[in-house]
Amino acid sequence: MIALGIDPGTALCGYGIVRAADDEMELVTCGAISTPTKTPLDQRLLVIYGELVQLIREYKPDQAAIEKLFFARNITTALSVGHARGVAMLAVAQAHLPLAEYTPNEIKQAVSGYGGADKYQMQQMVRMLLHLDDVPKPDDAADAVAIAICHLQSARLRELIDSQS
Amino acid sequence: MIALGIDPGTALCGYGIVRAADDEMELVTCGAISTPTKTPLDQRLLVIYGELVQLIREYKPDQAAIEKLFFARNITTALSVGHARGVAMLAVAQAHLPLAEYTPNEIKQAVSGYGGADKYQMQQMVRMLLHLDDVPKPDDAADAVAIAICHLQSARLRELIDSQS
Repeated sequence: MIALGIDPGTALCGYGIVRAADDEMELVTCGAISTPTKTPLDQRLLVIYGELVQLIREYKPDQAAIEKLFFARNITTALSVGHARGVAMLAVAQAHLPLAEYTPNEIKQAVSGYGGADKYQMQQMVRMLLHLDDVPKPDDAADAVAIAICHLQSARLRELIDSQS
Repeated sequence: MIALGIDPGTALCGYGIVRAADDEMELVTCGAISTPTKTPLDQRLLVIYGELVQLIREYKPDQAAIEKLFFARNITTALSVGHARGVAMLAVAQAHLPLAEYTPNEIKQAVSGYGGADKYQMQQMVRMLLHLDDVPKPDDAADAVAIAICHLQSARLRELIDSQS
């Protein structure tokens, strides 16, 4: 299974594509789509959407996952994340990929085994789980990779549970 | 000029298309794209985006306008509006329509001549300006029509100013 994790934002939209086979996971690609603050918002959304559509076409993930957002620093941030999250969800839905949402705590729990893990611990776990020499950069890419890992771990757990029942 | 006004929302996304010729304006079409609350958000965004793309294709507006949002009741509302606003802006940008944003006060000022107009006054002004028998329904459609009117009035004003200078 290949999972696409998305950490949406208008300035930086992180993505991480991770493949799971047997008991191993490997990083396919990751990065962050960056759009300049001075560019009009509709043009920035066009870039974010276009690059996500391109990534899905190129790497053919089977499933997608995105962070569930309960809160934001403030309403302006929520609106801004909402715009990017909207076009990201659209790109995923148009490609008929099942989309899962996870809370920050669920992602931390799945990746590090501890819902209260900090950013450093999370990044180190991502690096170790994927046998990488370095932590993916920028932070938004590492966050998106963590979301993809969370989804793959959850999928494996669901499979195990199904096979026992 | 044909203007598309959009009042974005995930439950109801209002749209209004208004044509201006000489000194008159006429309503081309208006309505609200409704998506059920129980449908997953990505599927709702797919419907909103798809219907807007279809409307743009069918009625070929030259320009688009959307409400500028500074605040929302709360962060959950802001996120929700942001998702719909994001896919609406994307549909507009993909069709290469120039997009203008107006504050609620600017829309009230342009439509009713008074920035503090209430919903009833606004709806009656929309009805009168477009020579309609009834106020467009639902409210989201009337709001979107008001945004389109605001844009056409502003465009006319800009033309006048340009012709004097």
